Amino acid sequence: MIKLDLTGTQKFAPAPDAAACKAAIDTLVHGTGAGNDFTGWVDLPEHYDRAEFARIQAAAKKIQANSKALVVIGIGGSYLGARAVIELLKSPNYNALPKNTPDIYFAGNGISGEALSELLTMIGDRDFSVNVISKSGTTTEPAIAFRIFRELLEKKYGKDGARERIFATTDKARGALKTLATQEGYETFVVPDNVGGRYSVLTAVGLLPIACAGIDIDRLMRGAQEERRQILAEGVSSAAAQYAMQRQYFYKQGKKVEILAAYEPAFRFMAEWWKQLYGESEGKDGVGIFPASVDLTPDLHSMGQYIQDGERMLQETVVFFDHARTEVRVPSDEENLDGLNYLAGRTMSYINEKAMQATRAAHIDGGVPVTVLRLEKDNEEAVGALIYFFEFACGVSGYMSGVNPFNQPGVEAYKKNMFHLLGKPGY
Amino acid sequence: MIKLDLTGTQKFAPAPDAAACKAAIDTLVHGTGAGNDFTGWVDLPEHYDRAEFARIQAAAKKIQANSKALVVIGIGGSYLGARAVIELLKSPNYNALPKNTPDIYFAGNGISGEALSELLTMIGDRDFSVNVISKSGTTTEPAIAFRIFRELLEKKYGKDGARERIFATTDKARGALKTLATQEGYETFVVPDNVGGRYSVLTAVGLLPIACAGIDIDRLMRGAQEERRQILAEGVSSAAAQYAMQRQYFYKQGKKVEILAAYEPAFRFMAEWWKQLYGESEGKDGVGIFPASVDLTPDLHSMGQYIQDGERMLQETVVFFDHARTEVRVPSDEENLDGLNYLAGRTMSYINEKAMQATRAAHIDGGVPVTVLRLEKDNEEAVGALIYFFEFACGVSGYMSGVNPFNQPGVEAYKKNMFHLLGKPGY
Repeated sequence: MIKLDLTGTQKFAPAPDAAACKAAIDTLVHGTGAGNDFTGWVDLPEHYDRAEFARIQAAAKKIQANSKALVVIGIGGSYLGARAVIELLKSPNYNALPKNTPDIYFAGNGISGEALSELLTMIGDRDFSVNVISKSGTTTEPAIAFRIFRELLEKKYGKDGARERIFATTDKARGALKTLATQEGYETFVVPDNVGGRYSVLTAVGLLPIACAGIDIDRLMRGAQEERRQILAEGVSSAAAQYAMQRQYFYKQGKKVEILAAYEPAFRFMAEWWKQLYGESEGKDGVGIFPASVDLTPDLHSMGQYIQDGERMLQETVVFFDHARTEVRVPSDEENLDGLNYLAGRTMSYINEKAMQATRAAHIDGGVPVTVLRLEKDNEEAVGALIYFFEFACGVSGYMSGVNPFNQPGVEAYKKNMFHLLGKPGY
Repeated sequence: MIKLDLTGTQKFAPAPDAAACKAAIDTLVHGTGAGNDFTGWVDLPEHYDRAEFARIQAAAKKIQANSKALVVIGIGGSYLGARAVIELLKSPNYNALPKNTPDIYFAGNGISGEALSELLTMIGDRDFSVNVISKSGTTTEPAIAFRIFRELLEKKYGKDGARERIFATTDKARGALKTLATQEGYETFVVPDNVGGRYSVLTAVGLLPIACAGIDIDRLMRGAQEERRQILAEGVSSAAAQYAMQRQYFYKQGKKVEILAAYEPAFRFMAEWWKQLYGESEGKDGVGIFPASVDLTPDLHSMGQYIQDGERMLQETVVFFDHARTEVRVPSDEENLDGLNYLAGRTMSYINEKAMQATRAAHIDGGVPVTVLRLEKDNEEAVGALIYFFEFACGVSGYMSGVNPFNQPGVEAYKKNMFHLLGKPGY
């Protein structure tokens, strides 16, 4: 479902290390490497909990029936994946467009009081539900937001009513949120022990909000499943392995920044998800490709100059979608003052594709190796496959660079300082 | 109005080149350097056209009175500045929040048919106006969008009605859009000859959409004016010069990526504006600091790991706002399962500030020099000052690195290829 085009890197004569890649795949698949207690996502598309999956679908139906809005409370991996898939398969304008599924708002991913207070205004007096997502239940950002929204729900619907509207995605047995959920009788879903936050979009963490938006999560899982089978069958020849090898090769050649470029604004949050996945998995021990993203063609009139002609430390990966949902054609104009009649009758998809090809060629000329991934838009299977593709390639790429792709020790540094400054007991 | 805190770089013993900085300032202010025909923005806050400024304010009032939505058509510098200021001073949720000014949509900055078609749905049958912004009137992206919206306006209101709702910001005398505007009788505003797109937010390019959103553009200009006076009085000791010197010093030390970090989601598009300003001004001739941005604290759970512990090629600039518009306090909870009662009664601004200080200290420990800029939120003067601060520092920094900060030759490469692929006459 994902076509990998490496012709845009040939000019740079890459010599990817297939032996190292094979070793990394083996390490990942057999669970023999660093962080191997967090590789549950590898087999997840085959071996997920079918009973919980059905409960997710039922909970989504319940929320759709009784709520005009869903507030998803979570930070990092607990919101990026869901938001990414909803924006890509529905729209970045999802909330503003007419539909028969609830508006979906993401909260508890920062500490801006202004953002939170605006969210309360936007929800207004509409019926809403909350999906709080936290392994521990004590992470500062989501815990603050959950206190506020829980209080609001209890005021609005009473304790019994609120219970019907709070869905907790958390540890299966332990932690503050699990304890509270058991005590209050909230329906709970599981953040698996062996799947880290940034690899969790295909667990309940991502699937409940995604299902609420009316996206077919069966198809999403099926796509991931197919991609997994293909990767395991093809090994180092698979698209995911090729992508991993290539980016590591270019990294060693000094291409220390990877730009992920898409030609649809709907992809923006998938790029944010990708940045967490790769940045947090690979950026450690003083190494790692710096992940950045651009939204094209808009950013050709912003970062385009740098990509074309700035410091030569860039490699680029393009995600391009076939088959647009809607076609808009360029109108003809008698006077043709803008000189655009040569495009009259052309669809914007057609022009967008030519822009992509033109940009690809220009960047290659400028010394930037360009890899292109093509897939279908508005196709849940393809998006499920893309998620698994990026996850698998990330694990392989991380092992190839010699790091543990499944920990994030650096995230603790600011937390410790913050707890100390805030006077948290024990710090 | 902008407080610059360099204490977070002292550990790295920077030795900025004051002589080179002074030379760069002189070159910029006296207009003796490369690209000196595009330095009109330097004196703009003092010497702008007052009569046109009054016409901008009158046009904004007219649009506010007869339109529920304004469609701003432009790409690159023709939309980033306006969108940035509106999101920062109003809100990234501006369109979704209750208000008595029109919704503002940005179009013609890409080639996605899906995005355009969704915009048509969102406007629906509401009354709207268009501000088309293009020096030439022939840039592909905005020209396509303008054909579509002009056709729509003429269908809806007739030729005479449409004339009252189309505002063209374009060249003062020449070009396809100027010709059309004259012929059709549209009100026009000027993209000055001596101000490039990325430095144009304080001309009609940015000011008309900004004024439509109900922002006091007099105060915005006054802030830029004050900042200009201060910089010219203080020279190399000014905050802008210090920032320019410092980032060039660290660049030479191998800190090739600058991360702009803010702790308010409302800042996101200011960071996009900054990326264009710096990336396009400095990224050429094989050199330039790569500009990236993060939204904190959310991205501490995404790019945070990399910043703390990845490849050591980063320098960081923080923009932090004092005085939040609204205060939200952490509620108390009897059971305190989440352990958050130590924060009960605290405002989120208080916690956000501690998070900033904690993160700053963690990143310095991790080997990242951190510069902090502080200013007031919801203060037009401060935002005007910030704009001028970044523009001036960019010009100085660009000259210090030996490039022409006012051209963008690399942007033509993809265009030439694209016109060829699309069969444009003459290519």
